[in-house]
Amino acid sequence: MSVRVGVIGVGMIGQDHIRRITQVLTGGSVTAVNDVDAARAGQVAAGLPGASTHATAQDLIADGNVDAVLVASWGPAHEEQVVAAIAAGKPVFCEKPLAPSSAACQRIMDAEMAAGRRLVQVGFMRRYDAGYRAMKATLDGAGPDGAGLGAPLLMHCAHRNPSVPDYFTTDMIISDSAVHEIDIVRWLFGEEIVAASVLTPRRTSRAPDGLQDPLILLLETASGALVDDELFVSARYGYDVRGEVVCETGTVALADVSEVTVRTQNRHSGRVPVDWRDRFIRAYDTELQEWLDAVAAGTSTGPTSWDGFAAAAVTDAALEALRNGQRTAVSMPERPEFYAK
Amino acid sequence: MSVRVGVIGVGMIGQDHIRRITQVLTGGSVTAVNDVDAARAGQVAAGLPGASTHATAQDLIADGNVDAVLVASWGPAHEEQVVAAIAAGKPVFCEKPLAPSSAACQRIMDAEMAAGRRLVQVGFMRRYDAGYRAMKATLDGAGPDGAGLGAPLLMHCAHRNPSVPDYFTTDMIISDSAVHEIDIVRWLFGEEIVAASVLTPRRTSRAPDGLQDPLILLLETASGALVDDELFVSARYGYDVRGEVVCETGTVALADVSEVTVRTQNRHSGRVPVDWRDRFIRAYDTELQEWLDAVAAGTSTGPTSWDGFAAAAVTDAALEALRNGQRTAVSMPERPEFYAK
Amino acid sequence: MSVRVGVIGVGMIGQDHIRRITQVLTGGSVTAVNDVDAARAGQVAAGLPGASTHATAQDLIADGNVDAVLVASWGPAHEEQVVAAIAAGKPVFCEKPLAPSSAACQRIMDAEMAAGRRLVQVGFMRRYDAGYRAMKATLDGAGPDGAGLGAPLLMHCAHRNPSVPDYFTTDMIISDSAVHEIDIVRWLFGEEIVAASVLTPRRTSRAPDGLQDPLILLLETASGALVDDELFVSARYGYDVRGEVVCETGTVALADVSEVTVRTQNRHSGRVPVDWRDRFIRAYDTELQEWLDAVAAGTSTGPTSWDGFAAAAVTDAALEALRNGQRTAVSMPERPEFYAK
Amino acid sequence: MSVRVGVIGVGMIGQDHIRRITQVLTGGSVTAVNDVDAARAGQVAAGLPGASTHATAQDLIADGNVDAVLVASWGPAHEEQVVAAIAAGKPVFCEKPLAPSSAACQRIMDAEMAAGRRLVQVGFMRRYDAGYRAMKATLDGAGPDGAGLGAPLLMHCAHRNPSVPDYFTTDMIISDSAVHEIDIVRWLFGEEIVAASVLTPRRTSRAPDGLQDPLILLLETASGALVDDELFVSARYGYDVRGEVVCETGTVALADVSEVTVRTQNRHSGRVPVDWRDRFIRAYDTELQEWLDAVAAGTSTGPTSWDGFAAAAVTDAALEALRNGQRTAVSMPERPEFYAK
Repeated sequence: MSVRVGVIGVGMIGQDHIRRITQVLTGGSVTAVNDVDAARAGQVAAGLPGASTHATAQDLIADGNVDAVLVASWGPAHEEQVVAAIAAGKPVFCEKPLAPSSAACQRIMDAEMAAGRRLVQVGFMRRYDAGYRAMKATLDGAGPDGAGLGAPLLMHCAHRNPSVPDYFTTDMIISDSAVHEIDIVRWLFGEEIVAASVLTPRRTSRAPDGLQDPLILLLETASGALVDDELFVSARYGYDVRGEVVCETGTVALADVSEVTVRTQNRHSGRVPVDWRDRFIRAYDTELQEWLDAVAAGTSTGPTSWDGFAAAAVTDAALEALRNGQRTAVSMPERPEFYAK
Repeated sequence: MSVRVGVIGVGMIGQDHIRRITQVLTGGSVTAVNDVDAARAGQVAAGLPGASTHATAQDLIADGNVDAVLVASWGPAHEEQVVAAIAAGKPVFCEKPLAPSSAACQRIMDAEMAAGRRLVQVGFMRRYDAGYRAMKATLDGAGPDGAGLGAPLLMHCAHRNPSVPDYFTTDMIISDSAVHEIDIVRWLFGEEIVAASVLTPRRTSRAPDGLQDPLILLLETASGALVDDELFVSARYGYDVRGEVVCETGTVALADVSEVTVRTQNRHSGRVPVDWRDRFIRAYDTELQEWLDAVAAGTSTGPTSWDGFAAAAVTDAALEALRNGQRTAVSMPERPEFYAK
Repeated sequence: MSVRVGVIGVGMIGQDHIRRITQVLTGGSVTAVNDVDAARAGQVAAGLPGASTHATAQDLIADGNVDAVLVASWGPAHEEQVVAAIAAGKPVFCEKPLAPSSAACQRIMDAEMAAGRRLVQVGFMRRYDAGYRAMKATLDGAGPDGAGLGAPLLMHCAHRNPSVPDYFTTDMIISDSAVHEIDIVRWLFGEEIVAASVLTPRRTSRAPDGLQDPLILLLETASGALVDDELFVSARYGYDVRGEVVCETGTVALADVSEVTVRTQNRHSGRVPVDWRDRFIRAYDTELQEWLDAVAAGTSTGPTSWDGFAAAAVTDAALEALRNGQRTAVSMPERPEFYAK
Repeated sequence: MSVRVGVIGVGMIGQDHIRRITQVLTGGSVTAVNDVDAARAGQVAAGLPGASTHATAQDLIADGNVDAVLVASWGPAHEEQVVAAIAAGKPVFCEKPLAPSSAACQRIMDAEMAAGRRLVQVGFMRRYDAGYRAMKATLDGAGPDGAGLGAPLLMHCAHRNPSVPDYFTTDMIISDSAVHEIDIVRWLFGEEIVAASVLTPRRTSRAPDGLQDPLILLLETASGALVDDELFVSARYGYDVRGEVVCETGTVALADVSEVTVRTQNRHSGRVPVDWRDRFIRAYDTELQEWLDAVAAGTSTGPTSWDGFAAAAVTDAALEALRNGQRTAVSMPERPEFYAK
């Protein structure tokens, strides 16, 4: 059975997911689209045989030809759309952030808990990356020779983009870039982040005016593990995401990835990805395939509303830390039983 | 439009392709199966909603619900089945070898040329591996900084399997293992192989009785480039495929692939694949996806009958060289215009 | 001409330097030894043909057969011995720390400035390591293709020891371990460190009782560059020193060093050094050879008293930061003209 | 006690060894020099306080101020000079080749056996390289976790120079370049080479006129192990020496050596050595230091006259194979008891 997906928001990300569902993955089709820009929705639908367009997200969600909803609209619209999908009892994949504020995320959780079953998957695609998955498997004990590395104590991360558009703000370095490490740390360590600090090193001369770049974000987990995350969005040389978890008897790190090694002009070298698409395209594919599979099976997997909420809460603390220059505690309730692992 | 595939031969490889078409790829479905073991065909079909079973390969090929044929039967049956598919005007994907002898391959080519259009794709999946593709792109000039490496002069290959079953013969090291390098060398260098030699080094004590393992296969291309290929099917430590092309001003080599680097017990290490599936699973996925896409588009891509024929001709020469201990010329006609690139 | 060296302090480090001068390096001989343990001094001298023992460090320094002095006594004795060597007008190599307090270092500088020429080299041997030297050459512009990487903005360091003796204290993680990064950061960046902070992550269960291990030391340079230094002295898996400087258009990092790559049991791996000797033995050799060469040439090179002083001042700030949990400014005067580069 | 060395032949290599003895190593001094170019000998001696010049090699060998002799003259002169040193009972270090023909090497062995003790060390410096030493240690069982890799079956070598002078001949690719692999293979495998073949691949357009470059040299050892050696002296991109020994349960390979990894312009890269000096300078240092140490101790270590002879015998077979295009057996007597390990 093929899952009939309705896509809300057909900008760059939405169109990329449509391409994925129709040209790469199995078990799904796009049957309806909606966008605030009706003309754009029409253009996209024209390329999708049998797909309809809807004037509103609500209409799309209500469409009987839509089994599941993919939300790729802008952040401020997420809450209303996700809640509507929950109300309609339809599984919904929501691009990150789940909602721009932790309060909004809380309302989504409330709706989902009221509905009585998990319907929401949040688009933290790094959990589907082969590198992070191998890292998690190693931390969970399936390391070389079955030997565990002991408790994780530290993680060093770097998140480097070659460049960002002029409208990119320092806050976005936290809310758009660091949010990926915030989620992956929670997932790898299997515990919550309880505090955040932000350090502002010497600014690169290559950043757009007004952007404080790079930043160092420090995160503390409930058990006291410490994470440093270099965020550098004008790093020029490529898109480079790195991570090393330091445990009691060893470490595990993302490896450099290059298909071939070239030797020329007195160097041996491999390539660095050019952008996030290049680096994570397969993670996106896997993410959405597993969502389609879960929808078809009537189950739910992947990052939950709670994960979306927790990421928002940590992001809030980090943004506050950016402003006040202090270590800032994350304000977050206990994880509801509903979202127990 | 989804391509309706009929699968002939549903042993391990056939079932894996069925899984791929139904659970991984897009744009295809399996509508019919056939196997010399009718019970097995029935079992497999039972897991495929709407799929029929056919008593003979001919019946399957004739089925109006079959748009394209996937041949995964044993080698000796390929010729008849592929020729029948050609006769029916249906695109056919044939697992390697195209046929057990170059004479049989020639008859397939004759049938295809008589039909007037390319219908056959041969299952040389390494051409779809990201590593070999990056290697070819580098050789073709898209290297670092756009700088070419000059003419290729040499290639060093190694093809190591951890172990083989007891029935594996020394001839099979050539016909089953080395055939992959034979095809990839032709593809990378863009020219034919004109001679082969086989060297028999000291035998490993870990090989099954009677197996001469490892072997060194030497191949010469039309331009005089020389390839040495270590074939070692009882290598124990893992499945390791390596290659380095040496050009006039630099080299390009398959990189070690490991998602993570682990540091423990005074070693930093990455993993070696456990078997060919682990190493090449994505190449198989890409291979079959591109076939489905080509079938849907009414075009033809990938390794042709000529490639299957040429691989068989070189394999014949290598087997002869294994027997006689001499450099043995490959006997092969000019490439027909029909198969010009 | 061979430099006749008098060695003060013939414990483990002193004996290692004697071995180096007599069995590895050229242009030096050990003609006199002194130790607070006279018996040990006698034993060591017995193995050195023609070497005398002296009851006091002062006597050794005054010995007409001593051209230059190597101080490898314990830290509290350094000041008096180095000042005496300066007073005698003899070049002196002093193991780190130059002196246990920045005040004592200041007195050494005062004595040297009064003497009117540089006589002191401090034992910061990492500056002589091939890895750090290549890093500095790259930062100074001699990178690949002569292309510079732009201004340095960040540095990530890790300093991991497999284990430490039970008497090792948390303060010593700063004063004995981190002092190496403190010096190397000043040297690589070519500027002073102006502030330090210390973070205390989750403690490893493998550390000796009472030891807060690991630590994260944060350093800020005058230009605002930020350094994070993981100090982990119970890391078990090996001795691993790592560093990456992040610049405006690229990064440069210490490479993993392993003479060979081994493939076995599904891993490809290289070795991690077992201890600091294994990792830095050649740096020690180069350090002392360059000292002997400079002494023979009547010149002075390498880390100066000012470098010893600055390291002490930063160490003081880091120890204060460890106690108060705050970012702590380094208290330090302007660099005297005498110590200009 | 310092070894007083007399150096015969003060061209580039001889002068480099003099620099080594006087400025890098310990325990040696150069007290006498000789060269066919008397003016050059005088110039070199002028830079060596206390060193004398001798009109003939014989005079130098007879000099009472010469404890040991270093022969760095041209190959045809080696036999007479080495035999004279043996006759004088003085240890002699002879640059490779020991002599230009195996017959001449045989005469040197005869002289040494008649003298009754080993006095000759041949300059095969690769045995002193940290990479090859780690490789040998691994093969000899001191691998990771003490696990051996089983019997060695194959070795893959590459020996690439960026370029050679115009006078370089194809024969010299064997006698000057491949001789290093010939020796290292004998040493690593601990057995003799019994046959050689030479393959002539497509010629690079970058080689000097008339040079057949690259070549593939195939060597067979007594136990049947097979070695392929790519010799490519116009490889342009750098000086790159590579080797991988394939054993029954794993492999060990020379690792890429680069002090730092640079990330810039979408590549992560390390350096390739620029020439043999860059690559092997420390091996030369270690080689000569161990020779000086052995001379001072009155013992003998390192490659012997037998090793020089065996390398010459294999070189002869390889040169014959280059001419006749056939597998050519090495003609060599049993190893004399005198040269037993």
